[in-house]
Amino acid sequence: MHYFTYKNKKLYCEDVSVEQIAQAVGTPFYCYSYRTLTEHFIKLKRAFASIKPLICFSMKSNSNQAVLHSLIKKGAGLDIVSGGELFRGMKAGCNPRKIVYAGVGKTEKELADAIKRGVLLFNVESIQELETISRISRRYNITTQVSLRVNPDVKADTHEYITTAKAENKFGINIPIVEKICLKASSFSHVAIVGLHIHIGSQIVTAAPFIQAIKKVLAFMDTMKKQGIYFTYLNIGGGLGIVYKNETPQTAEEFAKRVIPMVRGRGYRIILEPGRFIAGNSGIFVTKVTYVKRGTKKDFLIVDGGMNDLIRPSLYNAYHEIYPVVQNKNRARSVFDVVGPICESGDFLAKERELPQFNAGELMALLGAGAYGFTMSSNYNSRPRVAEVLVKGKKFAVVRKRETYTDLVKGETIPSFVK
Amino acid sequence: MHYFTYKNKKLYCEDVSVEQIAQAVGTPFYCYSYRTLTEHFIKLKRAFASIKPLICFSMKSNSNQAVLHSLIKKGAGLDIVSGGELFRGMKAGCNPRKIVYAGVGKTEKELADAIKRGVLLFNVESIQELETISRISRRYNITTQVSLRVNPDVKADTHEYITTAKAENKFGINIPIVEKICLKASSFSHVAIVGLHIHIGSQIVTAAPFIQAIKKVLAFMDTMKKQGIYFTYLNIGGGLGIVYKNETPQTAEEFAKRVIPMVRGRGYRIILEPGRFIAGNSGIFVTKVTYVKRGTKKDFLIVDGGMNDLIRPSLYNAYHEIYPVVQNKNRARSVFDVVGPICESGDFLAKERELPQFNAGELMALLGAGAYGFTMSSNYNSRPRVAEVLVKGKKFAVVRKRETYTDLVKGETIPSFVK
Repeated sequence: MHYFTYKNKKLYCEDVSVEQIAQAVGTPFYCYSYRTLTEHFIKLKRAFASIKPLICFSMKSNSNQAVLHSLIKKGAGLDIVSGGELFRGMKAGCNPRKIVYAGVGKTEKELADAIKRGVLLFNVESIQELETISRISRRYNITTQVSLRVNPDVKADTHEYITTAKAENKFGINIPIVEKICLKASSFSHVAIVGLHIHIGSQIVTAAPFIQAIKKVLAFMDTMKKQGIYFTYLNIGGGLGIVYKNETPQTAEEFAKRVIPMVRGRGYRIILEPGRFIAGNSGIFVTKVTYVKRGTKKDFLIVDGGMNDLIRPSLYNAYHEIYPVVQNKNRARSVFDVVGPICESGDFLAKERELPQFNAGELMALLGAGAYGFTMSSNYNSRPRVAEVLVKGKKFAVVRKRETYTDLVKGETIPSFVK
Repeated sequence: MHYFTYKNKKLYCEDVSVEQIAQAVGTPFYCYSYRTLTEHFIKLKRAFASIKPLICFSMKSNSNQAVLHSLIKKGAGLDIVSGGELFRGMKAGCNPRKIVYAGVGKTEKELADAIKRGVLLFNVESIQELETISRISRRYNITTQVSLRVNPDVKADTHEYITTAKAENKFGINIPIVEKICLKASSFSHVAIVGLHIHIGSQIVTAAPFIQAIKKVLAFMDTMKKQGIYFTYLNIGGGLGIVYKNETPQTAEEFAKRVIPMVRGRGYRIILEPGRFIAGNSGIFVTKVTYVKRGTKKDFLIVDGGMNDLIRPSLYNAYHEIYPVVQNKNRARSVFDVVGPICESGDFLAKERELPQFNAGELMALLGAGAYGFTMSSNYNSRPRVAEVLVKGKKFAVVRKRETYTDLVKGETIPSFVK
C-alpha cells in the first residue's frame, strides 16, 4: 500500500507531481509520502490495539529528522542501534522512555550516554555488554533496565546478510546462557533484567519463523516463571517483509491475529520494532536517464543515480520496481540494465529488466526505496549525497538538502609537512 | 611493499606508533603512510621512465586532499570520474592539463564544468556522450580533446563487480563502432579525437589480460593508421593488482617490461591510471575490540569499526590481513569472525580467520585499506565517518576530522506541515 499513483499519466506522490519536485530540486532525490509512512504505522497500531504494544520504529531504515518526527507525533517510539541514532532520535523529539537500544557492539561511551539519558531498555547482546552496563550504571548510581536478546536459532528465509537468529550469527544470546544470566541476575548490580528480546531478521514475508521464535521464547519464559523469574517486556523485534516485486507478505492484521492469541493474558508489555514495514514503501528514488546506450550484448539505461545513492541492488541483489515518471503506453518495451555513473560493474539499479523505452532526460522512480535507501548512501566517486523530500497532501518540502562539492571536503586539511 | 612494521612488538606506520595515534584520535580511523604512497608512484614512474607516460592517479580509490596533494607534488596527474572529483582534484592543486575524465554517466553539467576547466582528455564511453561533448564545446567555442574508451572484450580474472571490459559490461565502445566514429570524426564539431583508452578492470594480478587488451587496441590503431587516422594518446588504464593475502601480482618493473616493448617507437603518449596500486597498501584501518563474544557455533571479535567504515569485505567478499597493534606471540590462536556493530549479518570485516586471542580494548589493524576504504564509507546506522590520518616519518596529522553527531543531521529540517 502506498500513495505513488498515476494521474493523467504522470506519477504523483500523494497530490504532488513527481516531475514538479524534480524541477524544483534536481535529480536524483528520495521522495517520501507522509500519508504512506504514517498509515503503515497506524495500521500496525490498530491491528495490535487490544494489547497496546510499544511500537518502536527501527530508525536505521530511515533516520531523516522529518520522517522520525512524523512517526513520533503519531505515538511511535524508536529502536536505535548507535549513539548517533540516540542523538538523532532525541533531536527529532522522541521521549527516551520510548527508546529501545539494540546492537552487538555498543561502546562504553554510547552506553554511558544512553544510560544517562534514561532510555527505556537496552537489548543486551552478550554477557560482556551486561557487565559493562552494570559497571557504568554503578558509576552513575542508576538502575538500568535491560532485555536480553535471545538467539532462538530460527532460520528466516531471507538474504543471508539480513538473517540474524541462527546460532552462527553474531546476534543474541543462546537460551541456556540467558537462563544462567537470569538465575544469577543479582550479581549484575544496578541492572534490572525486565524483558526478553528476539529479532530474527529482515524482509521476512511469512508468519512461520516469527511464530516459531515467539513460541520458543514464551516456552522459555514459562520455564523461568517456575523458577520465580518474571519479565515485564517481551520485545518481538521487527523484520516484517514488504512488497518489492511479487511477494505476498502478511498484512499487519494477519500478523496481529497470529501473535495476539499467543501473548494475550500473559501480562507482558509487547514491543514491536518495525522499520522497513513502515518506511519501505513510503519512499521512492527518482533518477534521470543520462544516456541510452546500446551495447552488442546488452542495452543500458545510464541514469544519474548510482550505487552510492542506493546500494541495495548491488549489496543484496535487491529488486526495486521501476515506474516511468511520465507514462507513455504507446512505447515499445525492451530489456535493459539500469546502471549508474559509478566506475564499476557492480553499479546497477536493475538488471535485465523489461521496461518501456526511455529517452535521455526522462525520469524514472524506483519504488520501495524508503527504507535502507538514503541511510546507506555514501559519497563514493565523490558524489554529493542527494536531497530528501517529504510530501504531505499538496505540500512538499526538502527535508534534507542536497550536498554540495564543498561538503565533500569538510574537515580535510593538507598538513604542512607534505606541502 | 609498505611501511607498516613492528618495532619492539608494536605496530608502526613509518616512525609513528599506531597505538600513539589511536590515543590521540580515538578509534576507528584510517592511517596512511606518505612514504608507501609516494614510493609506489615513484616506482611506477621509474619503471616507465623510458617512455615518460602521464601517470594519472585514480582518485576514486582515495580522494583525501592530503593524499592527492602528496602525489600531485611528485608529478601525478589525476583520473577522475565525476564533477565532485574534479572539484577535489583542483582544490588539491592538480593542473587540469594532467586530468583525464572517465565514466559512463557524465552529466551535462559535469561535462560543461570540465570542458570550461580545460581538462586534458575525456575518456568517452558512448556516441551519445560524444554528441553531448560536441554540443557543449560548440556552445563555449572550445575544441575539446577526447579519447574513445574501447571495450576490448577481454576477461580479467577478478570480482565480477570490478571487471569492466567484457562485451556485456556497461563500459566502453566496441571496436566496430569506434572505427565508425573515427571515420566520421569531422561530424562531431568542436571535438578532437586524439586518443584511445582501455581499462579492463580492477585488482588484476597477471599481465596476460592487459597484454591481450593492449595488443587488440594497438592492432586497431594500426588499421586506423592505414585509413589516415592517427592518435596522440594511448591510455592503458589501471587495474594493477596488489597483495591483500597471498597474491603474487606483477611488480611495476615486470609490468613495464611487458608493456614498453609493445608501445615504444609508435609515438603514442602513454597514460596510466593506477589507483589501488598506489594507495591500496599505503593505508590501514585501525579498530578496537569492544567485546569478545563466544557463541555456540562461532567466536566473534566485535570491533568498533563496521561495514559503513570499510565495506569491501561485505560487498566484494574482500580479504584484509589483520595485524594486532601490539604483538604478543605467547597468545593462543583461534578462529574468529571479526564483526562490526552494525545490525546486520553482512557486517563483517573478516570471516573464520585464525588470529591471536584479542581482549576487549585491544587494537587491530586491517591492512590494504588505503584504496576503496574511506571513499566508500557511509553514515549507515547513524555512525559518524571516521578520522583519516597521514604519517610522514616521525610526524602525523589528522587529514580529515572524525565527523560529529551534529554533522549527521546537516541540512535536515522538519517542515511546519508535519509539526
